[in-house]
Amino acid sequence: MADLGNFTKTRVESFSDAVFAIVVTLLVFEVKFPHIENAGNQAVWNGIVSTFPKLISWIISFLTVCVFWMNHHRLFDMFRRIDGGLFWANNIVLMFISLIPFPTLVIGDYPYSSVATFFYGICLATASTAIIILRLYVRGHKDLLRPEISLKAFNQGTWLSVIYGVLFYLLGAGAGWFSTYLAFGIYFFIAVYFIFPGAMRTK
Amino acid sequence: MADLGNFTKTRVESFSDAVFAIVVTLLVFEVKFPHIENAGNQAVWNGIVSTFPKLISWIISFLTVCVFWMNHHRLFDMFRRIDGGLFWANNIVLMFISLIPFPTLVIGDYPYSSVATFFYGICLATASTAIIILRLYVRGHKDLLRPEISLKAFNQGTWLSVIYGVLFYLLGAGAGWFSTYLAFGIYFFIAVYFIFPGAMRTK
Amino acid sequence: MADLGNFTKTRVESFSDAVFAIVVTLLVFEVKFPHIENAGNQAVWNGIVSTFPKLISWIISFLTVCVFWMNHHRLFDMFRRIDGGLFWANNIVLMFISLIPFPTLVIGDYPYSSVATFFYGICLATASTAIIILRLYVRGHKDLLRPEISLKAFNQGTWLSVIYGVLFYLLGAGAGWFSTYLAFGIYFFIAVYFIFPGAMRTK
Amino acid sequence: MADLGNFTKTRVESFSDAVFAIVVTLLVFEVKFPHIENAGNQAVWNGIVSTFPKLISWIISFLTVCVFWMNHHRLFDMFRRIDGGLFWANNIVLMFISLIPFPTLVIGDYPYSSVATFFYGICLATASTAIIILRLYVRGHKDLLRPEISLKAFNQGTWLSVIYGVLFYLLGAGAGWFSTYLAFGIYFFIAVYFIFPGAMRTK
Repeated sequence: MADLGNFTKTRVESFSDAVFAIVVTLLVFEVKFPHIENAGNQAVWNGIVSTFPKLISWIISFLTVCVFWMNHHRLFDMFRRIDGGLFWANNIVLMFISLIPFPTLVIGDYPYSSVATFFYGICLATASTAIIILRLYVRGHKDLLRPEISLKAFNQGTWLSVIYGVLFYLLGAGAGWFSTYLAFGIYFFIAVYFIFPGAMRTK
Repeated sequence: MADLGNFTKTRVESFSDAVFAIVVTLLVFEVKFPHIENAGNQAVWNGIVSTFPKLISWIISFLTVCVFWMNHHRLFDMFRRIDGGLFWANNIVLMFISLIPFPTLVIGDYPYSSVATFFYGICLATASTAIIILRLYVRGHKDLLRPEISLKAFNQGTWLSVIYGVLFYLLGAGAGWFSTYLAFGIYFFIAVYFIFPGAMRTK
Repeated sequence: MADLGNFTKTRVESFSDAVFAIVVTLLVFEVKFPHIENAGNQAVWNGIVSTFPKLISWIISFLTVCVFWMNHHRLFDMFRRIDGGLFWANNIVLMFISLIPFPTLVIGDYPYSSVATFFYGICLATASTAIIILRLYVRGHKDLLRPEISLKAFNQGTWLSVIYGVLFYLLGAGAGWFSTYLAFGIYFFIAVYFIFPGAMRTK
Repeated sequence: MADLGNFTKTRVESFSDAVFAIVVTLLVFEVKFPHIENAGNQAVWNGIVSTFPKLISWIISFLTVCVFWMNHHRLFDMFRRIDGGLFWANNIVLMFISLIPFPTLVIGDYPYSSVATFFYGICLATASTAIIILRLYVRGHKDLLRPEISLKAFNQGTWLSVIYGVLFYLLGAGAGWFSTYLAFGIYFFIAVYFIFPGAMRTK
């Protein structure tokens, strides 16, 4: 019990990986198929078509959670060890990641509602803010970083998180009041932007 | 089959980690969004507002399961090997941990019901009692502990589990009969108390 | 691609562990709380009481899946490598393990129905039969066993699986036609029997 | 941050394994038991019988996801490292794998609908197409392959994926317009075909 403030890094990483994997896989279970009385081909087809907004919000959230997982993976690669503060900062991040299926359900059910797209953006901006708080905690406890990590690059990564993680999601949240199509477009852009190799991959 | 009574420690740990990760991630799926006929902005907003008690009980349970995971992690770090008795004591702990989404659903749906807050506290006190039984089993089988672990510190940790794990949850369960706000406050306090570095982290 | 017929043992084990962990954790989500119009203390209490049959079937199934996991763990400890046949035999075992939440839901909802308790027993006997088929496959491919494993002990274990895994569950399935209480008792006994250290732990 | 474009292979593999394990285990939760007013033996029996189409689609999808997992396992065994492009190609594969419970639910609910069986086949063909895109990406980045892997065998595997993964599922999707029994038969055949040792196991 000498290392009361320390955690096994691999167990915290695999716990986090499990949370990301469960969130990403369960997203599709919010895509509910409508109950059809007369199960004719036309009715089943209409049922499938009626789930399209849910499938689109599922794709956006799936890619978004993958981007968060990628950033989490990259961030934890920089850490040398995990203390109590970093453990709890990570738990708060995971809490907001695990919330994502809830706003996904809301925009899938009410895709034309500005409130729904606003709520979605706020939830994702909150998850990004939790990552920034974790980064600021590590900045104040530099011994948690592996010695070869440049502090300047780490701080730059924190600023990129503020821009791509918080500002862009707030932009999407605001855009929903003019057009929910525009909000969906911004959320999709944020997720897809990080797929292409040229992008700065440090949200 | 010579080591009939023994289990691979890493497999039991990763099985336990998976159970904790699944419980913690699935908690949000109990936050159901109400069905809205007329999906106007006001109605969607009211829908989101109506889920606030569920979101609060989700946050409390999320942090509570994280505290249980932290304690489980610390406890198993002290073990040298896992025998049949410890394996089953751990399964009983996991059983009550996996129950947590159920009382969480009940307090989220009926936040002003003393019975609901009482039931929640009893369930968490039961989970803590299962951890104490596991600790008492190990106390009676000292060869399961790593040799460098002080038995005095281990027993002290068991007493702290009785106080913070059982008595505090029973206090919350009792407080619910006077005020469900007070009960929520106590449950939130127990979870958050363990986040701060000064606290004795040995429930 | 030279070892086309072989699989990484640790990946198959951790895949299996994940399936067991998910099944065991999701069992509680079949314990649905009834919708209550007037959320008074008496009504919430009645709601909790009404879930007792579901909680009992949850406990039985939780312990049962833990026993299956324990046996799976012990069985795979005896294997040296995993070929294509063993991989698929294991998938069939996992398929019937993953079915368990379904009959659990049925006995939880209809605890006084002989058909429900019969169906539950048949499902568990089928899962045990899948384990026996896996064991017979390994018996026919002895090079899959670690060299220090005694073939006699392995065959003895297969017979114990027939008795405790298949015959006892069929006994429970049959007993349900006389008394569903008796069937519940037998299912509970099979699960709990394996907890005590004296029992032959080789289903 | 020098290896910005690289990912820890084991973490990506265990993330993928977790997604496969969750999908395969959650399939059974789409098998909903009908609500029965009068819980007599006959009614419960009829309820169980009414779930048979769902149980059959569950078995087909369970085996199908296992085949996909097997191919994923084999494919990733050939990789030396994982770059950004392969990471995202894998995420797209996992996205379509995680979609499988949705068309499974649709064919389970509407087993006699040509549209439902068509939709099921299209979804599985899309998942296979995602694997082919991943394979083509790796073909264009040969340094991702382990040096001992023959490029000729790898390309042959890609062609087999086109035939067994895409063409056969499209065949099933088309067959559903003549007979949904025939479509179910083809989907079952594709899954079972890969179980037998003689088959070319490289979808």
